[in-house]
Amino acid sequence: MAGYNIASLARLVEQFERMPGIGHKSAQRLAFHVLAMSDAQAKQFAETILAAHDNIKQCERCCNLSEEALCPICKNDARDKSVICVVEDPRDVMAFERTHEFDGTYHVLHGVISPMNGVGPEDITIKELLARLSDGTVQEVIMATNPTVEGERGGRSDGDVYFAAFKADGHHGQPACLRCAGRRRSRVC
Amino acid sequence: MAGYNIASLARLVEQFERMPGIGHKSAQRLAFHVLAMSDAQAKQFAETILAAHDNIKQCERCCNLSEEALCPICKNDARDKSVICVVEDPRDVMAFERTHEFDGTYHVLHGVISPMNGVGPEDITIKELLARLSDGTVQEVIMATNPTVEGERGGRSDGDVYFAAFKADGHHGQPACLRCAGRRRSRVC
Repeated sequence: MAGYNIASLARLVEQFERMPGIGHKSAQRLAFHVLAMSDAQAKQFAETILAAHDNIKQCERCCNLSEEALCPICKNDARDKSVICVVEDPRDVMAFERTHEFDGTYHVLHGVISPMNGVGPEDITIKELLARLSDGTVQEVIMATNPTVEGERGGRSDGDVYFAAFKADGHHGQPACLRCAGRRRSRVC
Repeated sequence: MAGYNIASLARLVEQFERMPGIGHKSAQRLAFHVLAMSDAQAKQFAETILAAHDNIKQCERCCNLSEEALCPICKNDARDKSVICVVEDPRDVMAFERTHEFDGTYHVLHGVISPMNGVGPEDITIKELLARLSDGTVQEVIMATNPTVEGERGGRSDGDVYFAAFKADGHHGQPACLRCAGRRRSRVC
């Protein structure tokens, strides 16, 4: 813009433009919304961003988002710890929870295996899932990755990795079933 | 969400939901984007919000956004100070400036008169516009409010207010022309 460049505004628009689904016009609209806020509102917005970023961590058990070491679902004694529903994203947990139908626990992979995008098994939380399966509590693992090519393949790859890890751990018998984590004859019971 | 409520995340989603054009799903997506930022990125985002909010004020002359007392356009000696283009919003200035065709100055009303929405002449920067017209520098006022019902009516109302103020100032002759601000016989020359 000839003769018209406000550096602080340009930087704010740029920040919003980096967000998913936000183009230049939307970023501009959001930036102007910030400018129209009162001092208290702008301060609160900035503080909320920092607070959310600093306070929210991964649950030590299921890798879901949590403000404490264990998320409310893992801490809840009423939830069935023998069932793990494996999902890609914390938003999937939210979607399941809205149904009020599932009383097991979750495991959040934080992604899917996608060799095309350079995402391997070590980049998602498969290791943490394997650790959970090793103590014998879990009776059923439900692979609820999304019905996309990567989600479906991810589900299979997770199974492969799980099987390989199971064997590497020195188990010479049949590895656990992908679905029920029990010692079955086939990969999926 | 039964058994699943992360207060910091809920607050962040709520903040994004207040923004124009952002629904619940988009707000959630933006909030998750913030969580996925590195510490440095989140800090920078919060700082950019506060910096933009604190640094950007209204230009003392044209009420456009500016980081200094006078905006770059009002400070620019090459701009024709005898022409004022009256717009509703700072984004309109940006749009005009992108054309590289207008070498006059602007006046940003920060809204339009809209009795339906309780916005009267005193809520927008008509007083500041009148003050600019009083020193005799301005030869032409271009009403470039948007071609909406309110924009068109706003343009007319601005003219009415301008005329009323002109008379209230003790001018008993013909008021200035709405377009050229010169002392003409009709409202618009």
